This record gives sequence, C-alpha cells and structure tokens, in this order.
Amino acid sequence: MSVQAPGPLRWAMVGGGQDAFIGAVHRLAGRLDGHYALVAGALSSTPERSLASGEALGLERVYPDYQALIAGELARPEDERVQVVSIVTPNDLHYPVALACVQAGFHVICDKPLTHTLAQARELQAAVEASGTVFAVTYNYSGYPLVRQARQMVQDGVLGELRRVTAEYHQGWLAQEQDAGNKQAAWRTDPARSGPAGALGDIGTHAEQLVSYVTGLHLEELCADLSTFVPGRRLDDDVAVLLRFQGGARGVLSATQVEIGRENDLRLSVHGTLGSLHWRQEQPNELLYDTLDAPRQTLTRGGPGLGTAAQAATRLPAGHPEAFIEAFANIYSGAAADIRARQAGQTVQADYPGVQDGVQGVQFVEDVLRSSREGGWVQAAVPQADAGKGEQP
Amino acid sequence: MSVQAPGPLRWAMVGGGQDAFIGAVHRLAGRLDGHYALVAGALSSTPERSLASGEALGLERVYPDYQALIAGELARPEDERVQVVSIVTPNDLHYPVALACVQAGFHVICDKPLTHTLAQARELQAAVEASGTVFAVTYNYSGYPLVRQARQMVQDGVLGELRRVTAEYHQGWLAQEQDAGNKQAAWRTDPARSGPAGALGDIGTHAEQLVSYVTGLHLEELCADLSTFVPGRRLDDDVAVLLRFQGGARGVLSATQVEIGRENDLRLSVHGTLGSLHWRQEQPNELLYDTLDAPRQTLTRGGPGLGTAAQAATRLPAGHPEAFIEAFANIYSGAAADIRARQAGQTVQADYPGVQDGVQGVQFVEDVLRSSREGGWVQAAVPQADAGKGEQP
Amino acid sequence: MSVQAPGPLRWAMVGGGQDAFIGAVHRLAGRLDGHYALVAGALSSTPERSLASGEALGLERVYPDYQALIAGELARPEDERVQVVSIVTPNDLHYPVALACVQAGFHVICDKPLTHTLAQARELQAAVEASGTVFAVTYNYSGYPLVRQARQMVQDGVLGELRRVTAEYHQGWLAQEQDAGNKQAAWRTDPARSGPAGALGDIGTHAEQLVSYVTGLHLEELCADLSTFVPGRRLDDDVAVLLRFQGGARGVLSATQVEIGRENDLRLSVHGTLGSLHWRQEQPNELLYDTLDAPRQTLTRGGPGLGTAAQAATRLPAGHPEAFIEAFANIYSGAAADIRARQAGQTVQADYPGVQDGVQGVQFVEDVLRSSREGGWVQAAVPQADAGKGEQP
Amino acid sequence: MSVQAPGPLRWAMVGGGQDAFIGAVHRLAGRLDGHYALVAGALSSTPERSLASGEALGLERVYPDYQALIAGELARPEDERVQVVSIVTPNDLHYPVALACVQAGFHVICDKPLTHTLAQARELQAAVEASGTVFAVTYNYSGYPLVRQARQMVQDGVLGELRRVTAEYHQGWLAQEQDAGNKQAAWRTDPARSGPAGALGDIGTHAEQLVSYVTGLHLEELCADLSTFVPGRRLDDDVAVLLRFQGGARGVLSATQVEIGRENDLRLSVHGTLGSLHWRQEQPNELLYDTLDAPRQTLTRGGPGLGTAAQAATRLPAGHPEAFIEAFANIYSGAAADIRARQAGQTVQADYPGVQDGVQGVQFVEDVLRSSREGGWVQAAVPQADAGKGEQP
Repeated sequence: MSVQAPGPLRWAMVGGGQDAFIGAVHRLAGRLDGHYALVAGALSSTPERSLASGEALGLERVYPDYQALIAGELARPEDERVQVVSIVTPNDLHYPVALACVQAGFHVICDKPLTHTLAQARELQAAVEASGTVFAVTYNYSGYPLVRQARQMVQDGVLGELRRVTAEYHQGWLAQEQDAGNKQAAWRTDPARSGPAGALGDIGTHAEQLVSYVTGLHLEELCADLSTFVPGRRLDDDVAVLLRFQGGARGVLSATQVEIGRENDLRLSVHGTLGSLHWRQEQPNELLYDTLDAPRQTLTRGGPGLGTAAQAATRLPAGHPEAFIEAFANIYSGAAADIRARQAGQTVQADYPGVQDGVQGVQFVEDVLRSSREGGWVQAAVPQADAGKGEQP
Repeated sequence: MSVQAPGPLRWAMVGGGQDAFIGAVHRLAGRLDGHYALVAGALSSTPERSLASGEALGLERVYPDYQALIAGELARPEDERVQVVSIVTPNDLHYPVALACVQAGFHVICDKPLTHTLAQARELQAAVEASGTVFAVTYNYSGYPLVRQARQMVQDGVLGELRRVTAEYHQGWLAQEQDAGNKQAAWRTDPARSGPAGALGDIGTHAEQLVSYVTGLHLEELCADLSTFVPGRRLDDDVAVLLRFQGGARGVLSATQVEIGRENDLRLSVHGTLGSLHWRQEQPNELLYDTLDAPRQTLTRGGPGLGTAAQAATRLPAGHPEAFIEAFANIYSGAAADIRARQAGQTVQADYPGVQDGVQGVQFVEDVLRSSREGGWVQAAVPQADAGKGEQP
Repeated sequence: MSVQAPGPLRWAMVGGGQDAFIGAVHRLAGRLDGHYALVAGALSSTPERSLASGEALGLERVYPDYQALIAGELARPEDERVQVVSIVTPNDLHYPVALACVQAGFHVICDKPLTHTLAQARELQAAVEASGTVFAVTYNYSGYPLVRQARQMVQDGVLGELRRVTAEYHQGWLAQEQDAGNKQAAWRTDPARSGPAGALGDIGTHAEQLVSYVTGLHLEELCADLSTFVPGRRLDDDVAVLLRFQGGARGVLSATQVEIGRENDLRLSVHGTLGSLHWRQEQPNELLYDTLDAPRQTLTRGGPGLGTAAQAATRLPAGHPEAFIEAFANIYSGAAADIRARQAGQTVQADYPGVQDGVQGVQFVEDVLRSSREGGWVQAAVPQADAGKGEQP
Repeated sequence: MSVQAPGPLRWAMVGGGQDAFIGAVHRLAGRLDGHYALVAGALSSTPERSLASGEALGLERVYPDYQALIAGELARPEDERVQVVSIVTPNDLHYPVALACVQAGFHVICDKPLTHTLAQARELQAAVEASGTVFAVTYNYSGYPLVRQARQMVQDGVLGELRRVTAEYHQGWLAQEQDAGNKQAAWRTDPARSGPAGALGDIGTHAEQLVSYVTGLHLEELCADLSTFVPGRRLDDDVAVLLRFQGGARGVLSATQVEIGRENDLRLSVHGTLGSLHWRQEQPNELLYDTLDAPRQTLTRGGPGLGTAAQAATRLPAGHPEAFIEAFANIYSGAAADIRARQAGQTVQADYPGVQDGVQGVQFVEDVLRSSREGGWVQAAVPQADAGKGEQP
C-alpha cells in the first residue's frame, strides 16, 4: 500500500448526502490512504439538499444534480477537472449516472447492484469498454486481506479441486415492519428505487461476488427459494439458493435481512479435496484453514504464512485489527492505482471488482428471480465475456 | 435426573462388539446414571466374535445371535429376564432385530436411521403400538439440555412465529477414499448395510430430527441436491436441502461428510418474529439468544434464565461442562423413566425420541431421494400419525 | 481406557449425601467406565441423614458414620469387603477419615484440599507410604485429555525452556452475601469446616496443581495478595499470586469466587522459548498451540497431532465432546488401574494425582497465607520428597 | 463524529519517516476523518532521511530537523502556519520535541510513554498548562467505542463498587534474540532510545492507562515482578504487577513481549459488586457484560444498549467492524475538536488522553521499577494534580 501518490486524484461524488450511510463510508474509504481529494458533488435527490449537503462537507464545487456536475466539470480546464466520480445513490440511479459519467470520460466507482436489468448492465459494460475508463464496483468485501488470501490459496491449488462452497449473508435489521420510517429501509424496499430484488440485490449479490472472487467457479445451475417474511413488504427479504458450478462443485448461498440479532454476518466456507477455508466478515482478521490429518490453523492478517495478495492489502502488523473501512479503502486504492497507471500509459494488475463483476451480479439476480418464478432448477445465464474481470490479477 | 431407581433395569445389547464405536457409546450412556445393568448380549455379526466380545465385557449371558438372545431370555424367569434391548448394529439389522424384540415384548432402544424403507418403519411402528413397549430411537442430540431449552422457548412462543431454520451437520472424516479400510466407513458406504442413503441417512436424519424436535414444524415441500464427491463411493456423501414448512417458515438443511476439518459440526439456528436462537453441538453448553433491540444473551447450561426442560436434563452446575455422553444418557434415562412408569402402571411425560421420530426420519430420507431423482421441489410425505411423538411432552 | 475390568471394584463413599454436589459427581465418575460398584456408604454428618441418603441411593450397606463403616467392612470376608473408599466430605473431615481408611488398609480417593495443615498432610503421606495403598486426590482437571497433551508436550520439550505460566481460576457464585443460605457456600466459608483458606483452598489449589502437573516446575518464591471482598465473610474469596519457579520461569496465579458472570473459568497458559499453549476448562476439547513463525494450531481431543497421553484419556472421536465427568472419571480409572495392578503384584504408570499432590497443595496454601501475612515475597516451602508424585508417569 | 470541520487543521509530523510503523498509523488516523492536512514534517533522525521521507510523502514543507520545523513555521504568516504537531519519534525525543513545540505555542499530539523521567513529564505538564495548548497523548486504546462504553458504565455505577481489575497486554514479537536486525525492536530495546523500561514502557503503560481510563481508580500500592527473558536484552521484556487501589479494589496487570503467538493481545476485565465487563482489543467490537442472576450479554459497537460515549465514537452500523485505525482516529478527532473549540474561545468535553495521562504513565513506570528494585510492595506515587485529566469528560 506504499506506492507514493503524485497528489490525490480529483474526486466527485453523486449521492451520499446528509444521513446517507454508504456515501459517508465512501468518503472515509477514499480519504484513508490519501489517494483521493473530494472536490465536487451532487449529493442529493433535490437541488436544495444537494447544495446543503455539499456545503456541510466543505466541498469546493457543489452541483444541484449529476447532469450539472458533468457539464460543469467538463467545462473546467483539464488540470482542475474531476478525474473520478463515485456513484452512491439508490440503485435506480446507478445506470443513468454511470452511463453519463463513462460517456463523458470520467473514471467511475459505482455501488452495487450495478443496474436494475441485465440489458442495462451490458450496455454499461459496452460503454466502459468503449471509453477505456476505469470502472470499479464496490463489492467491498473482496477488499479484505484474508479474502484475498483465500482467493490466492484457491488459485494456487492449496485446496485441491473444489467441492463445496457455502456463502451466508445474514442481517436482522429489516425483521420488523418499519420500512417507511427508516431512510435506509425505505428505498431498499421500494421496487422503483431498489430494483426487482430486495435482500437478494442488496446483500445476496455481495455473497455471490465473494464466492466468485474467491473460488473462480462459474455457475451452471441454481435453484432458489425467495421469500418475503415481513407483511406488506414489496420485495424479498430472504433468499436461499442451491448452486451447481461448472466442473461439479456445489454450493449453498443464503441472504436474509430478517434474522433477529444478526448484524452484518457474511461468511464464506470453501472446501476442496485437500483442504478447507472459513472466513467471517465480523471477525475479518482470521482465516481458518484445515488440511487433511493436521490440526486446524488460524491464519491472521499480518501473521505468518500469508501470500503476496494479503500482504499487499495490509497496513498494520498482526493483532492491530483492520476492518470494514480499510477493506473498502483497498477497493478505492486499487482503482486509484489503475487510474494512475492508465494516466501513465501503463498496465497494472490492480485488484478491484470491475464492471464485469457488476454485470455478473445482475445476471445472478435475474437467474434467482427466474428460478423462484419457475419453481425449480434453472440454467445460469452464460456470461458474455467469460474471461471477464480484466481488472483482477 | 434425581429420580431414585429401584435397582437398574436388566439390559441386553445387540451389536456393539469390539471396535464398534456406537456400542461403546451406548454402554457409557446406559451406565452413567445407574439406570441400566448390562447383563446379556449378542454383540457381533458372527457367533465367534459375539462370544468373544461378550466375554471381554464380562457379560453374564452371551448369545451367538439376536434370535438366540430373544429365545434364551424368554426362557428365563421373569425376574431375571432382560427388560430392555439396545440395538446398535449396522442399519440393515435395525428392522429385523427391532421387530423381533418388540414382538417378544422387550422394550427397545434402537439406533437411527430406523429402517431402510418407510414401509418397514411403519410396520415397526404398528408393532410397537400393538405391544405397548417403550421404543426409543437414539436421536441423541435432542438430549442436550440447551436443545431442550430451545424447544421449550419455541413452544412457549418466546421466538414468536417462526420464519427461518438452518440446520447443518458437517463432518470431514469421509473426505478421502478410504472406505474399505475403515470399519466405520466400510458399512456406512455400503448400500446393503447402510440403506439407500449415505451421509443423508447417517447424519442428515439427525439434523432433520433436531429441526423437528426444536421447532415442531411440519415439512410441506423440499428441494434437495444430493452429491457423491468421493470417486467410487456408492452412496451420497453430501446433501443440501431447501425446506418449506406448513405455515410458511423456510429452512436450509445440509449434511456432509467431506468437508475437511469438520469434526462433528452440527448446528441449529431458529429465527422467529420475536427472536433467534443459535446452538452448536461442539460447544453444547451455550445457547445464543437474540431479541429485538437488545444485546445478545448467552444462555448456559446450569446458568440463569433456563426453563424446566433444560434443568431436568442437567447434572452439574454451570461452567462444569456436560457433553456428548451426558446428552446420550439423557435419552437412556428418559426411556428408563418411561419403562418404570409403565411397570408401575403410570404415565410419564418422559422426553426421548420415539418410534414416530424414527418413521419421520425414514420419510425424510425417501423425500430427499425423490427430490434428487426428480430434480426439483417435491411434496413432503404426509405423516400417518401427525400428532405422533406421544413420548414427548 | 479399554483395559477390561475383572468385575468392578467394591466401593464405599464417606460424605456425599443428599444435596451434596461433589458426592454426586464422584458417583457419576465412578460409574462411567464400569470400574467401581458402590456398595457401602456413610454419607452424611448425622447417622439419620446418612441412613436416609444411603437408602435413597439403594446402597447394600449403609453405615451411620465412617468409623462404623471401617469397622463393619473389616468385619466382612475379604471377597465382600469394600476395596476402595471415596472421601467427599467437607474439608475438615478429610484428614481423620483418610487417615483411618489408610491405616485400615483401604485404597482411598480423597477430595482436595487434602488437609487443613501441612503437618496433617505429611502425616497422611507417611501413612500412605507405610500402608502401600493407592491414594488418589481428585485434582480432576488433570484428567482432561488436552491437559495431559499439554503436559506431554512440555515433557517432550516441544515448548523449549519455559518462561511464563498463567493460571486463572475464576468463579462468581460467591459474589454476594448468601453464604448462610447456600449449602455449598455455608461450609466453604466457615473456617472450621473449610480450613484456613477460602477460594485459595477451594479452587486456588486446583490452579496450583494444574500448573505443577503440566509444567513440572517447582516453586521457589511467591508474593500473594489475598482478599475478602464480601462483607462479613470469614475467609478469603479472592487471591492473586506472583510466582517464581526454580530455573527462572515466572508465573501469575489468580483465583476468585466473586467475579460476577464467571462460571467455572479455569485457564492455563504456558509459554516457552519455542512455543505456547492455552487451555480453558469451559472449552476443554481444544488446546491452542503457537510456534515461532507459523499460524496458530488448534489441537482437538480425538483430532490429529495428539500424543499417547491424550489418546489414552479419550473415549470418543473428535467433535463428540467429552467434558467434566469424563475427565473426573479419568482420575477414577487411573486409580482403578493402579489398584488392580497392585492386586496383581504389578507396577503400572497410572496417571492420577496422588498424596504428594495433596501435600503440595497444602504447602501452597500455607505459603500464600504466609506471604499475605508478611506482606511480600516469601520462599516457597521445600517439598520433602521432591521427586514425589510416584503415581504419575 | 459528524461535527463539520471548517477545513482541516494544518498539521506537521516529527518522526515517522520511511519504514516507521507508528508514523504511518498517525497519518492514517489523522486523515481518516478529514480533520488534519499534513503540510510539513521533520520525519527522520538525519536531515537527509528527513528530506527523502518528506518528499516521498509529497509534503509541501520538509525540514531537516524539529528545530528547523519550529523556526520555519513560526516564520510563516499565521494563516499558513502549522497548527498542530504530531511527535512520533523514538521515546528519547518525546521530551525535547514536545517541550519545544508547546513553548512555541503549537498544539501537540505525542506518542507514549511521554518521557524518560517523571521530572521531565512534570516539567512538560507545567509547560502545557502555561501555554494553554492542546496536548494529546496517543493512548489510542482508549479511543475504542466499547472501551468508552465500559468507562461510561463504570461512571454510571452500573458495575456497583469495583472489586477487581485485570489488564493484560501480551505480545510475542520479541520472543527471540533479533533485536539488532529489526528496526522496531532495535530502539525499543535500547535504553538510550527507549528509556528505563522495555515492555513495561512500551505496552505496560497502555494497560495502565486503560485501567485508569475505564475504572477511574487511583493506585495506592503495587508489587511488581519485572523480567528479562531473552538473553542479552538490556531492558525488561515482561512484567507482572499486583495492584491495590484506593478504596479497596485490587488488580493484576501484566505485559509481555515474549509470549509466542500473541499478536497484540490487550485485554481488560473489570468486576464490581453488581456486574462485570470483559473487553479484548483483538475483537474490539464486542464488550461482554455480566450481571447478577442473568445470562451474559454481548454489547456490540453500533448495537443496542450503548451509551452516548460509545455512540459518539462510532462511524458505522453494527456488524461493519471498526478497528485499530478508527480508534486511533478517535483520539485525533477528539484533539481536533478541542483545538477548534479553543480557537473559537469555547470549552468542549472532548475525549482524548492528555498530558496528565502521560505523566501518570511515567509515574507508573517509576513505581514498577522501584518495586522491582526493592523487591516487594511499594506505595504508588501520589499524582500532583489528582483531579487531573481535564480533557476528559
């Protein structure tokens, strides 16, 4: 993490006004490693609130909406112009804002799920490929050092041939009927803002990306059970999916927002012919590693036995825990490294989720919805660009 | 557990000879609370090994096979005759031995899965009902005090209306191709001895019974993914099942014997509209309890806040851990209490799994196999005697 | 644990009547492995209660007091006579009962702390040596398989030269002024029954024995801080001790009964030049093992990487937890093996705490009391028979 | 944490050049919440390395040494001049640099232990009081939200009258003789750079401050056992201390850097007449809370049941773990709030450790060294300004 930055990137934010949760997280993450300086924003859904939020943050340039931001920045000299835009709006705006930013030549860091529909996602992917801009999707859990360790161990064959994967993302904060009165709940449970999926899109896609990122497996078939437990809710708040991967591995993925007492309980287990790994987001500095005929080992962030990927994502010695913001910042720093490399005409192997991960998440949502509608096993959609994920080593 | 016994019950064992795992467990469990005195046995599959095993255990009366045991004991005066027979053979012998014992009027404690087929299980159930004997099935995990606490909390409505249940029973000891050389593996992976199911029957049925015991929910539909990961194995070694219960609750049940590093990792989570419970067999003296808007509580065996069911199943103060053998012995002691009550012409509400639990387990196996064969959701078989489970309070 | 017993030993109990905690534990432990058959007892402090308790237990021979028991049994033919006596009275009776039993030629299993004074303990030790009887002291925590693993690893040099040892035994059940109304509390906080030490004697001696058993270190100096926190209590309820061992290792030992929320929280950490071990009684099936420059390993009872001592103390496969009663039974089974060996004129290396451990515990109590009285560092008493502990391998 | 900053404070750093651990941590912490902009520095012990390090960081103004920094900044117009200086040098420079900065009117954020001698610490304290500048000492562990929760619970009387406190700070990274080759080890084990104490000063003072911060107790007497286990090392690497507090509470504090496998294992337990708390730095988002006669509760950062102090120190919802950097940043943000308040002529109750905490740490070091030298209990030095700690609410 010690690459010296030639001054921070000029950075704008769309969404993330006062009281927004994820916008504040992006600001913490962007600030942590010193690679970004927030200079502009269109932070809210109304011009008035945008301006008030921007002022409260002390931004130099506050715009009433994203169109004004794009136009205003394009009008500035290139050495003052914003270089990268973070999109932290409710889901329904991801597509139009991202498309406009990409087409205007800005690098983009966009929240997930990428879009409401697969068609939108693929259109966006094509635009990114045409523009040559960096496009990161904040599947932030792949920024944890021990998640990267897990991925590297799988890639290195340490687990042998994979057999079974379990991914759980369980929360409880939507267990009660409170959607209207809770800003975070309100848009997430509104199909117009959130898209066709509730818990599935909000957290199920994180679980799917984590599986894909760590295992490299490709879905072949799935069978989903989608539920809405809270009366009156218009989107799913719980989903469980049986997964079959190309090559024969199997999996179970579950995501719920109605299990009382669960905070942000994302877990991943990967089992192969030679060993097993267990990781848990709420205790992110440990990775349990089992092998045949030996005691369990606990790999720790910064501790002995780690590979290069984890080391590169680590700031502090073992026992000095890094956590959510640091993992999030690893995505931001990966994108920054790629932006700077492209500015310098170089190619780097920066590790961050890209537009292909975003497309794949929307595909997953559509596959799960189809299985739920049809009531049984369905073929997973074939990714258009299977190799995809050019941004990852 | 302090009911005073009027001398131990005269007890015989079929199966459980030298090197058998589960027979030794039954002997420890039967001995612990002093309710059983092992006096007779037909301990192995050949007369020679039966006799050798019986001698090694210092049994008074050793028989070459179960037929001889039944005949020999019936020939003795009633006040010397064995009163209860434990059946701890490989699965294929459960049905004939149990049927013969029940028809001869012996009380029976039988291992699970009860039989190979549902027809056999129902025939056995009818025989038990006709004979009036006690018939316990050693779904031993329901003997843990905190499992009983969980059941009582559900029954008392503490969790509200149930929404989601997760049961996992994960082991790793069959991750490699070693079946032939391992006595425990050999019969469990042989369809002739084990029956139509591998991991599903061996441990999946434990998970199913635990769900049923704690939640009282009835299966309505299920969708299963059954796998055999180890090349050459003739039975499943891994299964995952989506569950839909009458009344709308959903669940996921998984059982595997190929996850390297898992020892005997049985876990249960139950989530309702008012709270959640988590229990794990490898740390059986804790029950995590979550409610709306309050910190998580950790209920402990012997600790504050427990109900009568857990207290009745507890021998030692908090912090003095009880474990597998003690839970197993709770099943034995429950059966003993019922036997003695019947001897005295009384009715007790002894808490142990009965023949109906055994039938239900075989039903579950058949349902899962059918779902796997047909490839999708299937209706769960309707239990014949829905109320069933007369042995449980 | 599979040595075949030639019929159980004829066993009597002094103390352990109705409502007694530790007597019931001894009965469970003696019964578990089938090596003991309880045939006689003098179970309570009054003849009436002794007789009632014995009847409730269904004992063949019930005596009004221990003198009558000894006389009565000596009067019986040798092949009916009790062979071994367990002493589970309040502390004040350990000395007279044990001495009488040993002098009468009975093998003895005695609770700790052994006696009120070091002089008594040494007298008892001399009597044991003179009689040639087996004398076990139920420092039961040394019966846990992973404690034995830890001991073996230290003996094998796996940890290198020892540097630091931490032993904590923390409970909370005496945090309030309730001594009079609680049978267990009443005698433990009464100097006439309990002896000169409260928490120090009751649980501090367990911690001391655990340190000694696992490390083999000999105390050289200590400095203690003894406290009585609950107003009106006549004995200590909390103690912390700095330890210096021969050879340069250091330690901290603490024992308390007033830390609210602690159940039976006994922990041991041992650190050497090559590695470290951590064990905790409330999770007794795990032993954490750290080495230089490698990830932490978790050794599990029944799992890979264990030595012969742990294996010999294990009944069940990994993941099938054994706990307090099983560890306690390991002490009983060790004593039984030694009794039978002596009956057969053989010598065995049975692993159980003997009279020397008992003497050492009383020495430790006296040393701590002296340090507390004098206010600073004191020399530890030199054990009379330093090699001692002939009963342990 | 949402107070809007009127532009970040102009910030300089003394020490913290390339390869320094703690300097990088201070930069992350200062950057996270946006309250500080690093504009100047004298980062290393030689002018050449200072300049190289400053350039690598992209600093506007790089000075060869701290004297030049002070002179250079004082020469600048007030609205460009550095406002606050962080001192992150080896310990020997804390005193001269801090004194010079304070006397020049800069606010200071200084690492611990504050100085080598108590006389120096008191001189510094007097200078701070004379100058009216903000002086924060980075006892960063008091920045954790759940540590602040613990403090608030003690202050609110939730635990009743305190009885026992245990603080452990155990590391293993100095278990081997490697001091010369390890930059972090080299100065820490050199009395000229580190001062009179090794592990005691480096981490023992953190443990002492944590006890003091959470409990508010004042030391009355202590008895210490100071050790140097690694051959050839010139300072202690291990210490255990018995503590007696005014009012009757007792404690044990231990700090070691030679326990193999320990990473940064700082733990605190506090026990009173009504309840107990347990906190562990490596799992900082949980606080275990026990009360009389109720199950244990696990308080979580961001979760239900927390007080205002924890909430004010929290950025993210429950389950999104915050960790070391965030806690460190809470100290920085507390100091920033106080600096801005003083600039505005206001008084705030910002929560950060001040010069009095630093003085107290040096007192503790001197008391422990005295006890070790004299061999027994010593009176703790009476703090000059007992009320002290004006910076904390």
